[in-house]
Amino acid sequence: MKDRIKVGLLGATGVVGQRYVEMLESHPDFELVALVGKSSAGKRYGEAAKWLLPTPIPEAFSDMVVREAGPTSVDECAVIFSALPSEAAIQLEPLYAKMGKAIVSEVSAHRMEPDVPLIVPEVNGDHLRLLEFQRKNRGWKKGLATTPNCTVTGLSLVLKALADRFPIRKAVVTTMQAVSGAGYPGVSSLLILENVIPYIKDEEEKVERESKKILGAVNGGSVKPFALPMAVSCNRVSTLDGHLETLYCEFDRTVTPAEAESQLSGFRGEPQKLRLHTAPEAPIIVTRQKDRPQPRLDRLAGSVPGMSVVVGRVRPGLDDCSIRLTLLSHNTIRGAAGNAILTAELMLRKGYL
Amino acid sequence: MKDRIKVGLLGATGVVGQRYVEMLESHPDFELVALVGKSSAGKRYGEAAKWLLPTPIPEAFSDMVVREAGPTSVDECAVIFSALPSEAAIQLEPLYAKMGKAIVSEVSAHRMEPDVPLIVPEVNGDHLRLLEFQRKNRGWKKGLATTPNCTVTGLSLVLKALADRFPIRKAVVTTMQAVSGAGYPGVSSLLILENVIPYIKDEEEKVERESKKILGAVNGGSVKPFALPMAVSCNRVSTLDGHLETLYCEFDRTVTPAEAESQLSGFRGEPQKLRLHTAPEAPIIVTRQKDRPQPRLDRLAGSVPGMSVVVGRVRPGLDDCSIRLTLLSHNTIRGAAGNAILTAELMLRKGYL
Amino acid sequence: MKDRIKVGLLGATGVVGQRYVEMLESHPDFELVALVGKSSAGKRYGEAAKWLLPTPIPEAFSDMVVREAGPTSVDECAVIFSALPSEAAIQLEPLYAKMGKAIVSEVSAHRMEPDVPLIVPEVNGDHLRLLEFQRKNRGWKKGLATTPNCTVTGLSLVLKALADRFPIRKAVVTTMQAVSGAGYPGVSSLLILENVIPYIKDEEEKVERESKKILGAVNGGSVKPFALPMAVSCNRVSTLDGHLETLYCEFDRTVTPAEAESQLSGFRGEPQKLRLHTAPEAPIIVTRQKDRPQPRLDRLAGSVPGMSVVVGRVRPGLDDCSIRLTLLSHNTIRGAAGNAILTAELMLRKGYL
Amino acid sequence: MKDRIKVGLLGATGVVGQRYVEMLESHPDFELVALVGKSSAGKRYGEAAKWLLPTPIPEAFSDMVVREAGPTSVDECAVIFSALPSEAAIQLEPLYAKMGKAIVSEVSAHRMEPDVPLIVPEVNGDHLRLLEFQRKNRGWKKGLATTPNCTVTGLSLVLKALADRFPIRKAVVTTMQAVSGAGYPGVSSLLILENVIPYIKDEEEKVERESKKILGAVNGGSVKPFALPMAVSCNRVSTLDGHLETLYCEFDRTVTPAEAESQLSGFRGEPQKLRLHTAPEAPIIVTRQKDRPQPRLDRLAGSVPGMSVVVGRVRPGLDDCSIRLTLLSHNTIRGAAGNAILTAELMLRKGYL
Repeated sequence: MKDRIKVGLLGATGVVGQRYVEMLESHPDFELVALVGKSSAGKRYGEAAKWLLPTPIPEAFSDMVVREAGPTSVDECAVIFSALPSEAAIQLEPLYAKMGKAIVSEVSAHRMEPDVPLIVPEVNGDHLRLLEFQRKNRGWKKGLATTPNCTVTGLSLVLKALADRFPIRKAVVTTMQAVSGAGYPGVSSLLILENVIPYIKDEEEKVERESKKILGAVNGGSVKPFALPMAVSCNRVSTLDGHLETLYCEFDRTVTPAEAESQLSGFRGEPQKLRLHTAPEAPIIVTRQKDRPQPRLDRLAGSVPGMSVVVGRVRPGLDDCSIRLTLLSHNTIRGAAGNAILTAELMLRKGYL
Repeated sequence: MKDRIKVGLLGATGVVGQRYVEMLESHPDFELVALVGKSSAGKRYGEAAKWLLPTPIPEAFSDMVVREAGPTSVDECAVIFSALPSEAAIQLEPLYAKMGKAIVSEVSAHRMEPDVPLIVPEVNGDHLRLLEFQRKNRGWKKGLATTPNCTVTGLSLVLKALADRFPIRKAVVTTMQAVSGAGYPGVSSLLILENVIPYIKDEEEKVERESKKILGAVNGGSVKPFALPMAVSCNRVSTLDGHLETLYCEFDRTVTPAEAESQLSGFRGEPQKLRLHTAPEAPIIVTRQKDRPQPRLDRLAGSVPGMSVVVGRVRPGLDDCSIRLTLLSHNTIRGAAGNAILTAELMLRKGYL
Repeated sequence: MKDRIKVGLLGATGVVGQRYVEMLESHPDFELVALVGKSSAGKRYGEAAKWLLPTPIPEAFSDMVVREAGPTSVDECAVIFSALPSEAAIQLEPLYAKMGKAIVSEVSAHRMEPDVPLIVPEVNGDHLRLLEFQRKNRGWKKGLATTPNCTVTGLSLVLKALADRFPIRKAVVTTMQAVSGAGYPGVSSLLILENVIPYIKDEEEKVERESKKILGAVNGGSVKPFALPMAVSCNRVSTLDGHLETLYCEFDRTVTPAEAESQLSGFRGEPQKLRLHTAPEAPIIVTRQKDRPQPRLDRLAGSVPGMSVVVGRVRPGLDDCSIRLTLLSHNTIRGAAGNAILTAELMLRKGYL
Repeated sequence: MKDRIKVGLLGATGVVGQRYVEMLESHPDFELVALVGKSSAGKRYGEAAKWLLPTPIPEAFSDMVVREAGPTSVDECAVIFSALPSEAAIQLEPLYAKMGKAIVSEVSAHRMEPDVPLIVPEVNGDHLRLLEFQRKNRGWKKGLATTPNCTVTGLSLVLKALADRFPIRKAVVTTMQAVSGAGYPGVSSLLILENVIPYIKDEEEKVERESKKILGAVNGGSVKPFALPMAVSCNRVSTLDGHLETLYCEFDRTVTPAEAESQLSGFRGEPQKLRLHTAPEAPIIVTRQKDRPQPRLDRLAGSVPGMSVVVGRVRPGLDDCSIRLTLLSHNTIRGAAGNAILTAELMLRKGYL
């Protein structure tokens, strides 16, 4: 475990920050040495974080003092993970990038900038090439890689697996998203108890925009978005973790449910080939139990808990050229901390750190 | 209030049965005189029913003794409302029809029989004509009218309003349905707490099949179904009442959200023209609050609580010829008891009782 | 409805503020003419308030512009209801009192001051006499009356009814409180979904302290607290409205459950004798259904919804001299807005306004 | 792992049955070879059980065929765990005992029979001596040991630890119990969503009766109950697992919270001394976080998940001689399967198997 790369974490006390702490506690490549916060700076982490996971705070971090953000506060770190609020990320992430750090950010602030890669490692690890343009454009030594919105990550894995084999023409998506997606304190219990909220600010736009970038192709110093008309409807339901999504897809040819299931369950990406630490054996698990996936029972399925998307109810759509299915993705693991850590693992293996 | 038509209620103790009791307590046309049950026969209604509404059991019914189903048990009633379990309805409904009663049933058992009208009064009151064929075919004096599945009722109102003006080509629907839709005891809390169940037995088939019959046209002694390809995904969420649905629709021409909103909010049916007792002023209420309709806050909106569908988030779909929206319908009122009572009111006015 | 007293409302947009607006919409004595807020000042009320009640915002108030707090902003009002955050109340309530207004406050800031009455109208309306001392002490023309914490109000009604007949010796209370008790946004859904939080800041101290003052006797210019040792444990559960409490009581003599039930259900106070507008026929309703009261089904029971405490499960305690029971009280109606309005009605009748 | 004792499980498909399967999957002493059910007999376990745990069904059991109950169906088993419905246990448990099996039952049917030990291993392992009387009385070779109600188990650990050092005089308890305590399907979601049910059939009587037997002393062939007046109020809340209880205790001497905390956290029993497989390091964990224990966050705390009781909020009661605290115990692990398995481990070590 020695000679690991020292890493820092911005936004350490939040819901996603806690997942990072949990997943980095004993990581073979990365050593988490700096927890950075704003209102919590100067306090012990165990006291500053409203710890919400059922496993206790790792002892190594409970007594670590939270540092203030700023030029010198993460001096010893080569890599910075960012789980900042978006407004804070706008300035702080470039600041650290300018200092020569590699930044891996799950924040929306810079995702759509042309020379910033937006990565789901199994889908578009090759987009990391954009870092070379970014370094040239911005004079940054390492640069900034981002990961997508929590709803997009699972969806893009499924769309990629399908599109690899079946020419896809349009997608209609409805989401039922967990409250942890809004952070802490996030969604008031007065709103969501015995209720569904059929709206999440900016979410539908993010899903459509980011999916197309992830599935797109690098073309010069930017990404040519994938041409996929999408109609997305986002809803908040009273689950804690796990975004459930129904997907209706049309294709340019006939696709049977069996073909789709086989393509989905057989899908593998670079992280699986490289046997990266946080890569699940199967990025997509297909269940044939008729009433699954369910958020509470399936969000941690697979060899690396929370990193696999679970797909069920694969069945015909309106005709032979369309498919319906339901997918579930853990929003703070595969949808945030886990996907960012896997991205960093891939960057390390590819020489970008 | 005198000279009202005496009515009986089959399945009186269930979740829907209780709504009937609440809505018929002081109805101007119908006098509820017979509560019929199976395991509860012989008991006082107040003791037999696990009363789940926040308003107390109407006193008039609390002490009424539940009768056993059978040929003579509803002798004085001209009209029978049925909220039976489906298996019981298969035999009992025809039995009473044979005795000359008019049956209005919200049960699925006979809905799809060719000469049985399946009614949402604002949509297809004219289908009641089928009763004439039915009387001839079956030798019944009054006959059996049915009302649709709780998910279909609200949806068909919206589809009808849209299709009246815009040639509709396909529909993709995802539902988030309340637990009362499964009756009592229905959904175990162990399944649904902090969870979503992405499957409801037979529900998607019912939605597709029944919608097409309701929107279809009477042609001789049966209904020619409306030609609308539909892809439906049904989910159970932890709300008590109110089915929320996202709808994506494609049309043969451009439709703007403003046109759609205007068409929906202006929609009126025969019950409004006839000023029927249970008819809401507007069958469809359009809200422009961006995070509405919400089940808990909007399920009782409108002039007759629970009888209006609330539509919100009307916005473009994938292109100019498609629309997305969210709709909410109270599943045990408009989706069951209320829709059946409104159907009976229409039958009365049209001379079918 | 004319010649009503003009009243203003501080803290109009919050959860309790909304209950005031709902209850004052068509009040025979009071005309709500001024809605006062801080961050919402200058906005339309309908836009400023995150309206959380299932009944729509009364139209009369939806377009009313929220005023800023300050010396002249409620000039035309003789009575001010306060639902402010406690910190704001510390300064603003005395400010308005100094201007000659009568203040009725459900806020904790001044409740325990010796010359400030803390009122549950059926229990200790005679404590309003303190206003005379207060006026003398402070030079205020009308003065400040307060109402207790949402958990105390229902409990003190029950304790008063029991203590009136049975010499009470000690009380052990456990509460299961609704999330609306913490206001909006209040309790994060991440904390309370599928959980119970066994702690509410300062709540247990308030319950013990305020109960004793309410049940105490005016003695000179202050209240001699009732000598009742109490051990209270407060818990937050995932209900929306309605605080449920288990009560174990010891007495100096034998008390049978039947005696206790009869004493509780027969209890009446001054508001009932005076037939005040917001006074329920029975302040305490006793149910014998073995699994009641339940928050969702019983919180609105009685002739004035939300104003009656519902008591059930009256049964022996440890021996013949002790009793156990369960009580339910609507926390934002009887526990806040409704109790304050009833207090103002009593003040009006007694000549204090 | 070889030469383990072959065991069978009655009631294998239920909520508690599933916990047994999970905990016995790789047990060093016991090999689960027979799953017995009634309606599920003949089916594969994976198909018969509505598996409700987030970890998948252990593969070894998924394909095992469920056996019918009956004289020969568990021939190869020396030990039988019973998680039967109570009515079935009345006859089946003695049947197997007569055949020479050792039965360890978490069912209420036989708990209160004089010569049947009712065991919480850390509290009263010495009561296993009753088996000797039982064998004599009934002519059984091994005999029947039982474990208590899910609410009692955690409570009796806390009462025992306190009573060991402080002479205890009375106890007032209020519970907030999880829905899994009622099994599957158990509590209808229509009852418990956004609600609390202040009643659980027969539960309060069981808590009072069983606690006294467990804390009592063997005296000849039966147990002299502990003389502790108890007043218990049981409530069902919408949590999945983990019974939360508030406890108020009076003692014959002064007890400070610090003394009580120290006594509770230092408590150890025979299972700890014998280092039994399922024994947690600390049977009682004391937390000083002011808003803990919480069911969702703390029910799996400790070295053997679900086997430790977590106690928090230890504070004075009404005076120096009383204490209040909050305790949490996992109802299907420590309150059922786990406590029974630990009992069997103790029986094995003491030579009773």
